[in-house]
Amino acid sequence: MNRKKSNPFRVILFAYLLSMFVFSVLFYLPMFHEPGVSLTYRDALFTSVSAVSVTGLVTINVVETFNWGGILILSLAIQLGGIGIMTLATFAWMMLGRRINLSQRLLIIVDQNRVQNQFSGLVRLMSSLIVIALCIEGAGALILGTYYLRFFDEPFEAYLQGAFASLSAFTNAGFDVTGQSLAPFVDDYFVQCITILLVFAGSIGFPVILECIEYIKSRKRTFKFSLFTKLTTTTYFLVFVIGAFGIWFLERDLAFATLSWHEQLAQAVFFSATTRSAGLSTVDLAAFHIPVLLFMSLLMMIGASPSSVGGGIRTTTLAVMALTLRSFAMGKKHVHVFGRRIHEEDQQKSFVVLSIFTGLLFLAILLIMTFEQDTPVTLLQVLVETASAFGTCGLSLGITSDLSLPSQVVLMVLMVIGRVGIIAVLFSFKGDRKGEQYQYSTERILIG
Amino acid sequence: MNRKKSNPFRVILFAYLLSMFVFSVLFYLPMFHEPGVSLTYRDALFTSVSAVSVTGLVTINVVETFNWGGILILSLAIQLGGIGIMTLATFAWMMLGRRINLSQRLLIIVDQNRVQNQFSGLVRLMSSLIVIALCIEGAGALILGTYYLRFFDEPFEAYLQGAFASLSAFTNAGFDVTGQSLAPFVDDYFVQCITILLVFAGSIGFPVILECIEYIKSRKRTFKFSLFTKLTTTTYFLVFVIGAFGIWFLERDLAFATLSWHEQLAQAVFFSATTRSAGLSTVDLAAFHIPVLLFMSLLMMIGASPSSVGGGIRTTTLAVMALTLRSFAMGKKHVHVFGRRIHEEDQQKSFVVLSIFTGLLFLAILLIMTFEQDTPVTLLQVLVETASAFGTCGLSLGITSDLSLPSQVVLMVLMVIGRVGIIAVLFSFKGDRKGEQYQYSTERILIG
Ligand SMILES: [K+]
Ligand SMILES: [K+]
Repeated sequence: MNRKKSNPFRVILFAYLLSMFVFSVLFYLPMFHEPGVSLTYRDALFTSVSAVSVTGLVTINVVETFNWGGILILSLAIQLGGIGIMTLATFAWMMLGRRINLSQRLLIIVDQNRVQNQFSGLVRLMSSLIVIALCIEGAGALILGTYYLRFFDEPFEAYLQGAFASLSAFTNAGFDVTGQSLAPFVDDYFVQCITILLVFAGSIGFPVILECIEYIKSRKRTFKFSLFTKLTTTTYFLVFVIGAFGIWFLERDLAFATLSWHEQLAQAVFFSATTRSAGLSTVDLAAFHIPVLLFMSLLMMIGASPSSVGGGIRTTTLAVMALTLRSFAMGKKHVHVFGRRIHEEDQQKSFVVLSIFTGLLFLAILLIMTFEQDTPVTLLQVLVETASAFGTCGLSLGITSDLSLPSQVVLMVLMVIGRVGIIAVLFSFKGDRKGEQYQYSTERILIG
Repeated sequence: MNRKKSNPFRVILFAYLLSMFVFSVLFYLPMFHEPGVSLTYRDALFTSVSAVSVTGLVTINVVETFNWGGILILSLAIQLGGIGIMTLATFAWMMLGRRINLSQRLLIIVDQNRVQNQFSGLVRLMSSLIVIALCIEGAGALILGTYYLRFFDEPFEAYLQGAFASLSAFTNAGFDVTGQSLAPFVDDYFVQCITILLVFAGSIGFPVILECIEYIKSRKRTFKFSLFTKLTTTTYFLVFVIGAFGIWFLERDLAFATLSWHEQLAQAVFFSATTRSAGLSTVDLAAFHIPVLLFMSLLMMIGASPSSVGGGIRTTTLAVMALTLRSFAMGKKHVHVFGRRIHEEDQQKSFVVLSIFTGLLFLAILLIMTFEQDTPVTLLQVLVETASAFGTCGLSLGITSDLSLPSQVVLMVLMVIGRVGIIAVLFSFKGDRKGEQYQYSTERILIG
């Protein structure tokens, strides 16, 4: 094993970048376009980056541009970006097993003393990840396809649409082949519920799903969920509930004023779920007002759980931020939650993520506003767009295709970093050599 | 000594709030107004909060509202807010000497083994702080007053104007009694230089000035500056230089296009210095373009050094952010700089400051945009305004007086927190009782 291979994060980043390039070439091929449509390489690249990072921001009209072959390629890009490379990422975390206890724990959970060899344990874990993902997608496709039978003459067409919708929801890609996202289903709570469940399954984190399956299998009362699972799941649902309430509260006298109570509830719940990272929408985002758009930007920046199909700073970073605040305000030195102590290194990681994220988002907004200063693009539109790209969400106020090439490049960079994760990107650049560790004495300084 | 008194941060916060109330009543008294002017209590309170927090955001025209008695009260409010309460804050840090090594170090520097009694050492330190501040202000007043002789018939008037300008610059208050800030001096580099030097002196941090004086006094080559002084001063000047370059770079083909090289340099340098927290301006902020306004907002959010007359997240927080990133990217566990190690607790504090700041600024913007949603106020204007209030800077795109009462309350809260400092505010709310410290085992989680 050579030096380069010993950095799994570099492998992930490279895998993402390579996939994006390959798919951009495929999208550029005229054989995948509708007759008479010509696509620039720039649009092909943006579509590819958006698909592989499962973001869903688009500069083109997908359904008018691609033929069924193109849609198939798109599905493949989404599937690979959402699950394939995700599995690679999980593998990378595993490889660092000696450093990350969760991985070891996961390994134990999956293997349950049945597997002697560590490598076969890893392979088994990865195959179960893929099997579980395909099962969930298949179930979603079956349910949605069967339900869609009423809208289509051909059952084949209905199931094809169902399969794509299920794929798009589970991978949180947010792409749609109807050209209008979920707007036709604004009053169809069944489709919305299935979609939300699929979105949850994809963005709640694969380790969580694995542990849940193991919990059901074990049928033991002694089964203990990992701190990671408890923390990320609690945070995920807290953000979801607060998000839904916030959206309803801010919009109740505005866009929601003329709606019935269940329509208000449905829209608030759906948009809170979709800002996690799905980016599907039942109404045009432009219908919402400034406060709720700011709030949704915040939700998109938070994003989904780590090791999921989502992006953003991740739920655990938010949780560690909040917990550090609490313990600091209480004058405690260590951060405790669920009867466990958060490791100092994880606190440091959260600090690094928050610092880079703040700087990166500010830089991205500054750059785009500079590139677009002769256009009518507003700060609000750019904030929503950058939050959406970094959170790989894909909700937009519709400026994506109007942006200049440099601005679109900025968005692409945000999508890649948002998807791969700040820590992983940072680690992938890190040299393997360790700097000499001198012993320095500590000296206190004044902070804030 | 009772329980309440044992929390010095509560004393500082209370001192600030009490001063703000007292001065709001004074500002409200008709005897301090120009004839025929009537001031609402709301405007009096806003002026008071802005003056005591040395921010300089105004809802009224100071020179048209207050008579010379009122201006005197205003000067007193600024002096107290900038230096008096600052001294109290330093005293508070001293009282926590057992926990903060810098204070002990400072104490040693000032006392130089000459003072046996700790309390008399503190008193001596505080009086030297006040004496130094008054000396710097006096020198500024003398220089500016003498220079102003050419503009005024009465020498008394010239020195009065010089004294106020010196006070306003050194305390970084940014108030002016000419009604046009430094705009009349846009081509007068002498006044600008003196102003910038005064702004530096006020915002670079009192401990730094004390150590510099001690360094000059000691004449020893063995004198060692504290880590705090090295770190905050380096960061301060880095931010200043990068700020000036950034402003010039972003504006070079726009507002600066028709200016000569030295006018460009002067404006870039002046605005970089003033965003530290002074808020004085040589040209109307509205002349600048969106990218540079975003950049200046960032500079204002960073703010000045701790234990200075400035606000913001403080230079040390930024430095610890950057250093943590560097050491994390290099795979080092500890953060080293200048041959010393940053204490884990200071890293945690920086994390807390950044977390609260991010949340607070977002909440403030969200609230103001909600309160102002029926007005033409834009997100950019609100961003500049909130950054300015939190950094106690006072630069504004001119919306302050148009905002509704709830929005102005938000700004006032930001000014107080920005001035007192996030950590101090947090500590002032903290109960004295220590929570029982259970021993929990550490468990790793996935971050970002
Ligand atoms: K998405
Ligand atoms: K100021």
